[in-house]
Amino acid sequence: MKLPISDRISTMPVSAVRKLAGYASTAKKQGVKVYHLNIGNPDVKTPQVMIDVLRNWKDNPIEYAPSQGETTFVNALVSYYHELGHSFIKDEDIITTVGGSEAIVMALFTLCNPGDEVLVFEPFYSNYSSLASLVDVRFIAVPTSIETGFHLPSKNEIEKRITNKTKAMLFCTPGNPTGTVYTKKEMDILVQIAQEKNLFLISDEVYREYIFEGAPPHTSILSYMKEYPENTIMLDSLSKRYSLCGARLGVFVSKNPELMKGVLKIAQSRLSSGIIDQAVGAKLTEVSQTYLDEVNAEYQRRRDVIYEGLTSINGVSLAKPEGAFYSMVKLPVSNAEKFCIWLLETYRSKDNATVMLAPGAGFYATQGRGENEVRIAYVLNIEDLKTCVSILKDALEIYPD
Amino acid sequence: MKLPISDRISTMPVSAVRKLAGYASTAKKQGVKVYHLNIGNPDVKTPQVMIDVLRNWKDNPIEYAPSQGETTFVNALVSYYHELGHSFIKDEDIITTVGGSEAIVMALFTLCNPGDEVLVFEPFYSNYSSLASLVDVRFIAVPTSIETGFHLPSKNEIEKRITNKTKAMLFCTPGNPTGTVYTKKEMDILVQIAQEKNLFLISDEVYREYIFEGAPPHTSILSYMKEYPENTIMLDSLSKRYSLCGARLGVFVSKNPELMKGVLKIAQSRLSSGIIDQAVGAKLTEVSQTYLDEVNAEYQRRRDVIYEGLTSINGVSLAKPEGAFYSMVKLPVSNAEKFCIWLLETYRSKDNATVMLAPGAGFYATQGRGENEVRIAYVLNIEDLKTCVSILKDALEIYPD
Repeated sequence: MKLPISDRISTMPVSAVRKLAGYASTAKKQGVKVYHLNIGNPDVKTPQVMIDVLRNWKDNPIEYAPSQGETTFVNALVSYYHELGHSFIKDEDIITTVGGSEAIVMALFTLCNPGDEVLVFEPFYSNYSSLASLVDVRFIAVPTSIETGFHLPSKNEIEKRITNKTKAMLFCTPGNPTGTVYTKKEMDILVQIAQEKNLFLISDEVYREYIFEGAPPHTSILSYMKEYPENTIMLDSLSKRYSLCGARLGVFVSKNPELMKGVLKIAQSRLSSGIIDQAVGAKLTEVSQTYLDEVNAEYQRRRDVIYEGLTSINGVSLAKPEGAFYSMVKLPVSNAEKFCIWLLETYRSKDNATVMLAPGAGFYATQGRGENEVRIAYVLNIEDLKTCVSILKDALEIYPD
Repeated sequence: MKLPISDRISTMPVSAVRKLAGYASTAKKQGVKVYHLNIGNPDVKTPQVMIDVLRNWKDNPIEYAPSQGETTFVNALVSYYHELGHSFIKDEDIITTVGGSEAIVMALFTLCNPGDEVLVFEPFYSNYSSLASLVDVRFIAVPTSIETGFHLPSKNEIEKRITNKTKAMLFCTPGNPTGTVYTKKEMDILVQIAQEKNLFLISDEVYREYIFEGAPPHTSILSYMKEYPENTIMLDSLSKRYSLCGARLGVFVSKNPELMKGVLKIAQSRLSSGIIDQAVGAKLTEVSQTYLDEVNAEYQRRRDVIYEGLTSINGVSLAKPEGAFYSMVKLPVSNAEKFCIWLLETYRSKDNATVMLAPGAGFYATQGRGENEVRIAYVLNIEDLKTCVSILKDALEIYPD
């Protein structure tokens, strides 16, 4: 008896962020200290007002939430978007999701039939690819490059990739994995193309609050949504802003009622997202601006440590990140994935430590691009980041490429 | 500008359990008391040892869990299955999921290519259909009926629906929405067909612990898994057993390593399920047998109230449920969905109350079946259930069909 699994799963790409997890656990079992720069799992504390929701928990039993989202959480999100200046957002424009990942899946399912195309700007968040493959959507890559800080190419460069199968453009600002913040002018161009070519725009704004010195101010798709309610979509998540990755709190925002009806059907088919997590998330309006300012300042200091540290290593180059907490880094190696595996399997610092990175190729759709790049998530404290820089410097010197 | 949503979502069936939610909220806004018999959201208390995990919460930040599942939760599940007598289950045979719903999606994605077929025994859990439609799998219904207590038809009746596109058989025991518990002999037949026809078997055992007087003992697919590791799959959830519906805690169990690798790829693409929920779930080994026994006894008393109450109404018939907490009930109406809407929109008891039911047709794949049936979830206390029975009796008397 031989029962093969489906082609769609056997050919699905493995998450670039998680694919080396097995090597890391083997190293840890050997007593090696592994510094995780591979995944955006922040070490910053979750706001106490959110932790207190758990500590004061009274509800029993733990019942399903409404499929659209727990009312208190949806209302808190409405207030939050109003405070950001988007007072036209109503509760019916919001569906809460199981992390940002589910919001992406829901968008792709609802906008695209099997085989339809979505324009993405590479490098892009690697799990976009895995999720697109699940829902049978083709990602068409518009290349951006380290030399131009991963900012958008010309309107024409984007438009020439649009076919009659293109349904949407998907982008992330501030960018994972690039740290790039699109300017108002870039956002204008995306909106203009979407209008002219009849496309949906999906804006992933999970890192909205992390904008550093030297970056343009953040321009949200929400500032276009009132004028273009039909084709603008905003995806959000509380994971990164409040260090809540393990609470699965994503948000789907649109003012297109037909679209929201479709998304709600998917939400109903899985009944509910987590009610405990949503009760925690509902406290977002009580998190002080000081908390967000301090976290932003901390990530900016880390950005500086990473940028200065890595650019001082021979052969390493990167664009100075403008926001989020990632950077795509070009390394003087022929194959970054092999180097990442070598770091986990073979390299040990004098303190028996190593660094885990995410291989760059998984963040590109174009074959061959990103092969000597890695994504770094600077989600460790400054001392640890300095140690990581020195480990990388040392490792690159002795790496037998 | 007109941007239609995808065909796959516009044609997706709406969840039978949730589709009338809008009518219910309107009634509630009018001050009407709505008794929810439409959804399996138990009123039974969640075990205190689980609630205490929240009240004693210390971890900060709230980080991602491993994609396979939080280690403490996976280990607790291994112990639990060992205690049930299946000591061959290892941690690598388990992937934890965002509720049972995600486990079903993962199974269908991993076993089936678009257009492949899965045999189901109708009536079946209505969200199976919505989820199958999402992943583009065709459900082929094997009919069972109220007259035979929804037990399986002959081997031949099942086999004649198998084609070269059939990949699996999916069933639920104890059954949602039927309350039927398959006998050892029925399970033997399913396993035999799967072996002979080279099919996967997906056994949804979410209601395992709820088996009532008069029912056959529960036969788990786990008791076949050691002998048939390649094609047996068990889906589980903590929602119903520990009243944890709002904590999204599902489980995918298989001893087929290739299959588990595929499921893990999907799990990695969404990074993690909720770590707070999993910490709560990890206490399942500390829940006393007394808790489960008492809950089982309570549901049995409710079963008796519902069965005796409803069979005493003229024209109403149902099979006596053997387990779970559902029943498919035949009503003396021409269209049960219209009756359900009428209950929410128009009917009011003398105490300004009404009952919400799930229309039966959504639990069938065969056009026309189930149109005069409803699913009842007896998840309210006995007093409330008696009130519901009397509301239904009264409503049926005056319903202008």
